[in-house]
Amino acid sequence: MCEAHAYLRKGSSEEKVLESVDLMEVEGSTVRLVNIFGEQRVLHARFLQYNSREGRLLFEAASEA
Amino acid sequence: MCEAHAYLRKGSSEEKVLESVDLMEVEGSTVRLVNIFGEQRVLHARFLQYNSREGRLLFEAASEA
Repeated sequence: MCEAHAYLRKGSSEEKVLESVDLMEVEGSTVRLVNIFGEQRVLHARFLQYNSREGRLLFEAASEA
Repeated sequence: MCEAHAYLRKGSSEEKVLESVDLMEVEGSTVRLVNIFGEQRVLHARFLQYNSREGRLLFEAASEA
């Protein structure tokens, strides 16, 4: 298994928003994440970076409505 | 190892643009992909979907300049 964890950047800090992400879909400014346990998170955020080696998905909170 | 391959959707077809992606960075409408062999691709595209189980990163060619 190779799972990536999703982190949301808010200013200078980062918050882990979902572990073991299996699926990520971007639609406009909305990101839907589903993990291997079937948990789902919908973020109003912008995708920034995926790092396979570190198992990280990084997002930035969208400031505009 | 768990690597994802990057595919670019153009209309109804999909083209594999890079194998074994290690790093992906989105900046505006530009996506930079680097794979485990150090190969790099820069796409003018929009990120659509990441599927860990299928090992797929899917992009859509940006139509606007």
